[in-house]
Amino acid sequence: MNPIETLTSLFERFPGIGPRQARRFVQHLLAEQPSLRLQLADAIRYLGAQTSQCKKCFRWFATNPETAVHLCNICRDPARGHILFVVEKDADIENVERSGFRGLYFVLGGTIPLASEESHKHIRLRELLVRVETDAAESKLTEVILGLSATTEGDHTRLILQEKLLPIAEGLSFKISSLGRGLSTGSELEYADPDTIQNALNSRN
Amino acid sequence: MNPIETLTSLFERFPGIGPRQARRFVQHLLAEQPSLRLQLADAIRYLGAQTSQCKKCFRWFATNPETAVHLCNICRDPARGHILFVVEKDADIENVERSGFRGLYFVLGGTIPLASEESHKHIRLRELLVRVETDAAESKLTEVILGLSATTEGDHTRLILQEKLLPIAEGLSFKISSLGRGLSTGSELEYADPDTIQNALNSRN
Amino acid sequence: MNPIETLTSLFERFPGIGPRQARRFVQHLLAEQPSLRLQLADAIRYLGAQTSQCKKCFRWFATNPETAVHLCNICRDPARGHILFVVEKDADIENVERSGFRGLYFVLGGTIPLASEESHKHIRLRELLVRVETDAAESKLTEVILGLSATTEGDHTRLILQEKLLPIAEGLSFKISSLGRGLSTGSELEYADPDTIQNALNSRN
Amino acid sequence: MNPIETLTSLFERFPGIGPRQARRFVQHLLAEQPSLRLQLADAIRYLGAQTSQCKKCFRWFATNPETAVHLCNICRDPARGHILFVVEKDADIENVERSGFRGLYFVLGGTIPLASEESHKHIRLRELLVRVETDAAESKLTEVILGLSATTEGDHTRLILQEKLLPIAEGLSFKISSLGRGLSTGSELEYADPDTIQNALNSRN
Repeated sequence: MNPIETLTSLFERFPGIGPRQARRFVQHLLAEQPSLRLQLADAIRYLGAQTSQCKKCFRWFATNPETAVHLCNICRDPARGHILFVVEKDADIENVERSGFRGLYFVLGGTIPLASEESHKHIRLRELLVRVETDAAESKLTEVILGLSATTEGDHTRLILQEKLLPIAEGLSFKISSLGRGLSTGSELEYADPDTIQNALNSRN
Repeated sequence: MNPIETLTSLFERFPGIGPRQARRFVQHLLAEQPSLRLQLADAIRYLGAQTSQCKKCFRWFATNPETAVHLCNICRDPARGHILFVVEKDADIENVERSGFRGLYFVLGGTIPLASEESHKHIRLRELLVRVETDAAESKLTEVILGLSATTEGDHTRLILQEKLLPIAEGLSFKISSLGRGLSTGSELEYADPDTIQNALNSRN
Repeated sequence: MNPIETLTSLFERFPGIGPRQARRFVQHLLAEQPSLRLQLADAIRYLGAQTSQCKKCFRWFATNPETAVHLCNICRDPARGHILFVVEKDADIENVERSGFRGLYFVLGGTIPLASEESHKHIRLRELLVRVETDAAESKLTEVILGLSATTEGDHTRLILQEKLLPIAEGLSFKISSLGRGLSTGSELEYADPDTIQNALNSRN
Repeated sequence: MNPIETLTSLFERFPGIGPRQARRFVQHLLAEQPSLRLQLADAIRYLGAQTSQCKKCFRWFATNPETAVHLCNICRDPARGHILFVVEKDADIENVERSGFRGLYFVLGGTIPLASEESHKHIRLRELLVRVETDAAESKLTEVILGLSATTEGDHTRLILQEKLLPIAEGLSFKISSLGRGLSTGSELEYADPDTIQNALNSRN
C-alpha cells in the first residue's frame, strides 16, 4: 500500500470518519507545510509520554515527564467536595464541570452491554469498588452519583453498579443516587415520549 | 383568483405547509374522485357543528348535535383523580394519556410571550383561575401540575401561573407542582446542555 | 368514528402527511373562524365544478362554468411555438415555464413502472399519440421533447415513448428529443456520480 | 498548552472537524495502543518524503525515495489519450476515472474567487498555460476539458481559463470544451431549478 492509502486507512479508524473524509484529511496534510505535519506527528508520537491516566479517576491528563504526578488536577484539588460523580467517559467530565458541579469523578470507561455476562470486562468495575471503599473508609465520601446515559445500556449498567455498591454503602454509610429524569431543556410536551413524561411526572416538584 | 390558486392559498395557511406542498395538495384533490372531495368538504364544513369545546377543560371533542353535552369524555369520567394537569394544547393531552396519567386536564391554549404585558390575551388565564377555585372549593382538587414546555416561554408562563395560583392554593390547600427536569429518555451526558445536567443533578434520587 | 378522527384520517391521505401533522391540521381548523372553514369546504367542494382538465394537454385549469372552455390558457395561446414538451405532472409545467420555455405541453400523468406490461394503464399513452399525430398532420409540430425525470423509471418511460413515437415521427417529420444530462447547477465534480460525469462528458461543448 | 489540548487544536484545523470531534479524536488515540499512535505519527511524518507532486498534472502520488520519479502513474501511462481534463482538486480525478474517462489531467488547485484581481494567486494558471502549450506544440493535445464545478465560482474560473486558453488554442489548434449541464442523474423536473432546466433544454438531444 502506498503512503497516501496507508494514512487514509489510519484516518478511517477515527471515530465517525469514512473513506471520503479520510482522503480529504490526507489531501489537507499534503497541502500543508512540512513543519505542520512534523508538529502533528510529534504531538501524536509523544501523546503517551506526555499524558497519564489518573490513578484515582482514570481520566487522561497532561503530565510533566520529569515530575512523576499520578493524580489529575481535579483529584489533587483539596477544595473539591466528597461527592463522587461516576461517568462513562472523559468527555462527560467537561460537560458536568460546565454545569457547575465541583465534586470528584470516576471514569468507568464505557457501559455494560445487555447481553454480556462479564460486567468487569467492559467497565472499570473493580477499580470503582476499590475507590469507593477507600474513600468511604477515610470518611471522604458522602454520595456516589451514577451519571450514566439515559439509554437502555446506561440503565442496565446503572442497575449493576447499584447492586454492587449497595452492600458497601450500607456498611460505610454513603448515599447512592442517579441523575434525575424528566423534560430536558428545550423540549415540548407534544414531542416528548411517554417514558419521559412519566419520569417528569414522577419527579415533579 | 382562480379556484386552484384560492385553494392553494387556503392550504398555505395550514401549519407547516409552504406553497409547493399546498399546490401538491390541490393536485392530489384534483386527481381524486369527486365523492372524496365532497366527503372532505363536508367533514370540514360540519366540523364546528359536530364538535364542542369542553366547558371544563377547553379541549375539542366530538358531540352529538341532538344531545347537548358540554363536557368531554375525560371531564365526565368519575374514575379520574383530583389532580389537574395544565397543558398548552389539545395534542399534549394525548401524549400525557399515553404516559399512563389518569387525572384531569386544562388546555391553556398557548403560552405567554416574554414581552407581553397582557397575559390574559394569550392564554385562558381567567378560565383557569375559575376552574381551580371551583374544583378546590368542592374538594375536588389536590394538586395542579403546570405541564408547560421546558422552553423560555414555557418557563415564563409557568412563573406567571404560579404567582396567580399561589394565593388560591394557600386558601384552599392544594399543591402546585411542575414537571421534573432532567435527562430525557435516550439522552447522553456528553451531549446534554449544562442546564439539563444541573437540573438532573438537582432532581437526582 | 368521531368527526375529529374522520377529518384526521382524510388529511392523512394527503401526500406527505402523517398522523401527527393530520391532527395538527384539524386542531388548526378547530381554532379557526367558522367562516374560514366554510370557505375552505366550499373551495374543495366546488373544485371539480370550477376546474377542467384541458382537452389538449390534460393539465387542470380554472373554468368559468357558464362559458364552456375546453382548452387551458397555454393551449389557447396562438403565440406559443410548435415544440411539444411532454411532462409527468402539472407541477412540472410551472417549473419549465419559469425556465423561459414558451412552447406547448402534454401531461402524461405519471411514469411507467419497470415491471409493468401495460404501459397505457399508467400514463396517457394513447392520448399522447393522438395529440402528436393530429398536431403533426396539421403542421403544428416540429419537435417532441420527452421531459421525464432523470430516474430509472423516467428513463424506462422515455424509451417506451421513443419507440412508440418514432414511426409517427418518420412519417410526419418532427424531431424527438430528450433533456440534456450533465452537471446540474450548483453541483461539484467531487460529489457527482460516475453516471452524471459520463453524461457531462458526452454532452460537453 | 498541554499535549491533549495541543493535539485537539491541531485536529481542529482538519477540514470539517469542530472542537467536539477533535477532542474525540484525541480520546480515541489515548485509548489506542502506543504502537498504533507511532504508526500514525510516522505515516504523517514521512508523508512528504514518500510522496511527490506530479510535475505534469500536480496531483500527489506515492514515490519510492530511491528511484526519483517525477511523474504520476497516469502521466506516465502511454495508453492515455490526448484529451486534457482540468480539475479543481486531486479528489475529482478519482471520480472522473470512475466514470470511465481515460485521458490526462491537470489539477488547478482551487478556483478563482469572484472578487479577486489576481487569478494566478489562487490556481496554477501559469503552470496550466505552460502545460497546454508544451503538449499542443508536441501534437499531444487535441482538447482541453474545463472540468470545473457548476457553481458561480466554478463558472467564473472557467470563463477566465477560456479567455487565457483561446489564443493558444487558435494558434495550436486544439478544442476547448466544458462539461455539459443538464439534469443530473436522479433529479426530477419538479424540483429542478430554472437554470438547470434551461441548460437541459439547450443541451437536449
